[in-house]
Amino acid sequence: MSGNTFGKLFCVTSFGESHGAGIGCVVDGCPPGLELSEADIQPELDRRKPGTSKFVTQRKEEDKVEILSGVFEGKTTGTPIALLIRNTDQRSYDYAKIQQVFRPNHADYAYIQKYGIRDHRGGGRSSARETAVRVAAGAIAKKYLKQRLGIQVRGCTEQVGDIHCEIRDWSAVYDNPFFCADPGKIPQLETLVEGLRGEGDSIGAKLYVEATGVPPGLGEPVYDRLDADIAFALMSINAVKGVEIGDGMRVAGMRGTEHRDEMTPQGFLANHSGGVAGGISTGQTIYARYAIKPTSSITTPGKSIDQDGNAVDMRTTGRHDPCVGLRATPIAEAMLALVLMDHYLRHRAQNADVVPATPRIPG
Amino acid sequence: MSGNTFGKLFCVTSFGESHGAGIGCVVDGCPPGLELSEADIQPELDRRKPGTSKFVTQRKEEDKVEILSGVFEGKTTGTPIALLIRNTDQRSYDYAKIQQVFRPNHADYAYIQKYGIRDHRGGGRSSARETAVRVAAGAIAKKYLKQRLGIQVRGCTEQVGDIHCEIRDWSAVYDNPFFCADPGKIPQLETLVEGLRGEGDSIGAKLYVEATGVPPGLGEPVYDRLDADIAFALMSINAVKGVEIGDGMRVAGMRGTEHRDEMTPQGFLANHSGGVAGGISTGQTIYARYAIKPTSSITTPGKSIDQDGNAVDMRTTGRHDPCVGLRATPIAEAMLALVLMDHYLRHRAQNADVVPATPRIPG
Amino acid sequence: MSGNTFGKLFCVTSFGESHGAGIGCVVDGCPPGLELSEADIQPELDRRKPGTSKFVTQRKEEDKVEILSGVFEGKTTGTPIALLIRNTDQRSYDYAKIQQVFRPNHADYAYIQKYGIRDHRGGGRSSARETAVRVAAGAIAKKYLKQRLGIQVRGCTEQVGDIHCEIRDWSAVYDNPFFCADPGKIPQLETLVEGLRGEGDSIGAKLYVEATGVPPGLGEPVYDRLDADIAFALMSINAVKGVEIGDGMRVAGMRGTEHRDEMTPQGFLANHSGGVAGGISTGQTIYARYAIKPTSSITTPGKSIDQDGNAVDMRTTGRHDPCVGLRATPIAEAMLALVLMDHYLRHRAQNADVVPATPRIPG
Amino acid sequence: MSGNTFGKLFCVTSFGESHGAGIGCVVDGCPPGLELSEADIQPELDRRKPGTSKFVTQRKEEDKVEILSGVFEGKTTGTPIALLIRNTDQRSYDYAKIQQVFRPNHADYAYIQKYGIRDHRGGGRSSARETAVRVAAGAIAKKYLKQRLGIQVRGCTEQVGDIHCEIRDWSAVYDNPFFCADPGKIPQLETLVEGLRGEGDSIGAKLYVEATGVPPGLGEPVYDRLDADIAFALMSINAVKGVEIGDGMRVAGMRGTEHRDEMTPQGFLANHSGGVAGGISTGQTIYARYAIKPTSSITTPGKSIDQDGNAVDMRTTGRHDPCVGLRATPIAEAMLALVLMDHYLRHRAQNADVVPATPRIPG
Repeated sequence: MSGNTFGKLFCVTSFGESHGAGIGCVVDGCPPGLELSEADIQPELDRRKPGTSKFVTQRKEEDKVEILSGVFEGKTTGTPIALLIRNTDQRSYDYAKIQQVFRPNHADYAYIQKYGIRDHRGGGRSSARETAVRVAAGAIAKKYLKQRLGIQVRGCTEQVGDIHCEIRDWSAVYDNPFFCADPGKIPQLETLVEGLRGEGDSIGAKLYVEATGVPPGLGEPVYDRLDADIAFALMSINAVKGVEIGDGMRVAGMRGTEHRDEMTPQGFLANHSGGVAGGISTGQTIYARYAIKPTSSITTPGKSIDQDGNAVDMRTTGRHDPCVGLRATPIAEAMLALVLMDHYLRHRAQNADVVPATPRIPG
Repeated sequence: MSGNTFGKLFCVTSFGESHGAGIGCVVDGCPPGLELSEADIQPELDRRKPGTSKFVTQRKEEDKVEILSGVFEGKTTGTPIALLIRNTDQRSYDYAKIQQVFRPNHADYAYIQKYGIRDHRGGGRSSARETAVRVAAGAIAKKYLKQRLGIQVRGCTEQVGDIHCEIRDWSAVYDNPFFCADPGKIPQLETLVEGLRGEGDSIGAKLYVEATGVPPGLGEPVYDRLDADIAFALMSINAVKGVEIGDGMRVAGMRGTEHRDEMTPQGFLANHSGGVAGGISTGQTIYARYAIKPTSSITTPGKSIDQDGNAVDMRTTGRHDPCVGLRATPIAEAMLALVLMDHYLRHRAQNADVVPATPRIPG
Repeated sequence: MSGNTFGKLFCVTSFGESHGAGIGCVVDGCPPGLELSEADIQPELDRRKPGTSKFVTQRKEEDKVEILSGVFEGKTTGTPIALLIRNTDQRSYDYAKIQQVFRPNHADYAYIQKYGIRDHRGGGRSSARETAVRVAAGAIAKKYLKQRLGIQVRGCTEQVGDIHCEIRDWSAVYDNPFFCADPGKIPQLETLVEGLRGEGDSIGAKLYVEATGVPPGLGEPVYDRLDADIAFALMSINAVKGVEIGDGMRVAGMRGTEHRDEMTPQGFLANHSGGVAGGISTGQTIYARYAIKPTSSITTPGKSIDQDGNAVDMRTTGRHDPCVGLRATPIAEAMLALVLMDHYLRHRAQNADVVPATPRIPG
Repeated sequence: MSGNTFGKLFCVTSFGESHGAGIGCVVDGCPPGLELSEADIQPELDRRKPGTSKFVTQRKEEDKVEILSGVFEGKTTGTPIALLIRNTDQRSYDYAKIQQVFRPNHADYAYIQKYGIRDHRGGGRSSARETAVRVAAGAIAKKYLKQRLGIQVRGCTEQVGDIHCEIRDWSAVYDNPFFCADPGKIPQLETLVEGLRGEGDSIGAKLYVEATGVPPGLGEPVYDRLDADIAFALMSINAVKGVEIGDGMRVAGMRGTEHRDEMTPQGFLANHSGGVAGGISTGQTIYARYAIKPTSSITTPGKSIDQDGNAVDMRTTGRHDPCVGLRATPIAEAMLALVLMDHYLRHRAQNADVVPATPRIPG
């Protein structure tokens, strides 16, 4: 398949550019009978939307989703669900001046090397705008997972520059533009981001995402392991440079006696593995971390080349975020939900008639 | 597809268990006309093989590969290449005693939850023995990449516990059992690993893998990005818990002015991105790091349960590695080669007739 | 993948119902740099459109296509091309009366057995309306095949009931509503179809489709043979019940001396095989025939059941065709073009660097 | 994927050449817990085996299958099942003389055009020997379908040249080398085939295959319809040139009042559709017909060319069948079983939790 389809049984095929007619996707494989309307999807899009606070890009997009197919009388029918989000704020003149040059560390240069052509308006297909599609499709998966299986997916910000946030209050995540579960850190985050905007610079971030209530048994080793697909899903998000499951990169310094998750009839004694063993869910909470690079769309000039190969000094203008990582949480939640939904369908395809032969311990 | 096929155009379908008749794979999609014999594959298998030093598991496997099909008169024909490695040393009695219990932090419990049945002999399908198949298939990709495209894939160990190794001498990697490019650190590594064997404990590791000579343009955004597929490939290796591309998790603390890779007509000024932008190769060196957890197969007893749900104290015996990460380099090289080979074929499917419209700068 | 994606490298993912908001598709994998606009697609849609003559259904659909993405400044960019056709004439009240019953020999009963739910408005997803999407996507493939490879795809009607048409004048096909290349038979066809409308009955048809200029080498044995994929593509069209390649079913009565296509340095002496040998194109004209059943949407009452399981007498009203086969030609052309386009990309993925080692004879 | 994998969830990846080390496959996706041993597969292979009567090729192959993986203590484990059949009778010297020429109407010419190289020993990959792999894999599907779902797949010969056979006695099929259910026709068939061998000619055949006990709901419209996949599967068998579902090509001459299958609370009144409506099984018997061309491997000389492009007179020697169609029944049964198995898994992936909302009538 050609790169724009995510999933094997719960398949999301994405389309659209930053400044074209619109973006959207086709979700194929959704089980029939799920209550679904735009009202299930729109709130997730609103969480991701640019322009919701002064800390993120001021581009104003309605991001209003329309369900074109696959739903009849309020329920999914088992046929493809097409979603469309029209682009409304397409000030492509902002980008006219960068038409002839490659922005450093953007996809511009790579795209033209690959395709021999590029849509220079706001990055075209490489724009983070595409992530709205993921959020929309993920909202369907999220609903199914929660309603039918009791699985909940959620995420928060863990680090921005050298500010580290802890998970103190999940409910706070929805009340601040940083997706921060550590309310005491919000003033520091505000100061940092406002400062960066003034300096014309940007900053990276580390984020956390988890799924609770996942039954054991999801994952298709040896290649399509649950953790491998989570790594794929998170690394496919724009600007992500690292992914960790469970203890992540820290395991390099750990001992077996420290890392192994011992089991008792009452449950696991630890969850260093992040809820996956041998590529299959264990019934524990699945959790991952991912790091997002500082955006290169900054107003501090940088060296680059133009389309004729000449050296230029490049300064990005237009509307951009000092910390793109601040908008990543709804996207990562969506991707994790899509992975779980796909693996749930794959698991029951092969194993729907399996009678578990063993006692199951609490996750 | 069902979880045991890697790649979309250069497809490796793997089979086999640790203690069954054998392991192997079918490689479908290899271009015709490549000179190929067992002599191209066997050396890579020998690099991975257990029992080559006292620092890794003493299991003695011949790991002798047979090409069953797809090669005629010394050349690939374009038809499927089947590889078979018979199991020869299957002392499954070593495992008889663990038949009724779940080893903590192994795939045992997850497998039986998923399938309702498990092959308890040495982990069955979940055994690291399956990675020999990856190495064998990867050897074919490596040969094509090197011979036809000048791409070289190589890796080394970067960290074991708190011993950090640098890349001082690539040639040393092939001379020591630690795949260490920092010869001065070898005595410390020897002491560490021998000590762990005595203590009945194990240790994690961080490793590095790179590909040089990769042309720009490989990668299929928005989902099947080159970096997303590398993350998938590396995370699919047994015991890997984290994957980093370029600066990796460190980007969380970096600024845009520091991280962006500026371009000049003479080439890139840095490679923080690890050779990938927007999911597409830039022509720079592609590099990644991955962390491998300390194996849970240790002789220090741990809490677990048996198949009737009773609490047991579990002590793994049999032949195991104090640091499974030490054998990971050939496997990661193989996986990176498979990803690049697959993306090369995918790229030319769509873009074989593209005339690059822009100056190309040195990688 | 979930049933609504056609092709492996040139992938068409279809969505939409007969009486929903619209129908459309995402075409992923199209090579970049192809000139493309709605004007390339609309004429093909117009050829398929209902309501163009009194001999086919009087449903009036604009079938106006909009390209939502993947095209920039008049050229494909290599990113997904989304096509949308809004539904405009959705008189679903025509279908209200059949809401509670299953039309005999329609997909109604099968759909509700499969999904537990159905969209009863005009057949929903099972409506032949979906074939407009195939025609739209096929128009892109057709353009590429013709412009870049010199491949031409065309088709015509060969039999309607007991009226047999020959290929006497290809240019006539575009001038009559029967896609008939045998102008002398048109009065008989008119009489037959008008008579059937009066009788409340319908009739089947046999059709012919061919591709000229196809280079040798397309097809991926042993399963994804070119002829197997053509059979799949044609049988996937609504109401098709039989597919023949070359001599087709007639081979059951033929001898080897009669059927084999002998070769000379000047070319093949015959083309009984329909341009495919061993699943791979030979360079000869590829041709196939397919039979379309008489539609069951007729005004002559038939026995059926309702949703409570009671016996009913069922009479379809609404707008329908006495011979649905008469509209199949543009659809079959589109499907053949999609198969060839997909196989062309698959072929060059694996074999782009093959230097043919043998003399090539004329097709 | 690369052409040698059949199925999406029950995946068969085939390998091997006629005169290489062996042939085989990997079956990925088989549900765990199915009792399976070589004894379930070998009888099916024996039914297909050449050399079992004087009416088919005298090549003597043991066709002895070995299960390499995926079965533990007599049951499938849910991991890949690899099957290997070693080649034993590889008299490739028989083929030495045809090394430099292309056999007319064989795959020789197409293969070398595609790959630039060919394995000339007995056709290499294009040999009908590969169909043994299909039969072996199909035996696993057959067992599951019968044991778990009560589905029975069977087939017979319907026509050879101008001899037409009826289904009078299914039990007779297993007692004669013609897979003929019309015992009175056997003497005629014997005379025909023996005569052809003397004449150095060959003959085509038409065959029938059916599946009884198939539940309604299998099939994934709009592209991956059950009937489209059956057409694909049957057309992928060597030498098949036509496929019919239900009334097949005959529908071109039929009327709607004649063809439609009316429904009553007691069941369907007819089965013209062959058990599929809208691409989904209806619960009726699924049946199809397919035509196999007369083999071109005949001793009557024919015109061809050699590898230098010179005209030659070509006469095939070696061991071949006057009617290859006579061995097709086990192969077609296997392919139909594979299609049903795959669609069963696909169906339950999406619809495992569907509660049918409607009365179900007898098939």
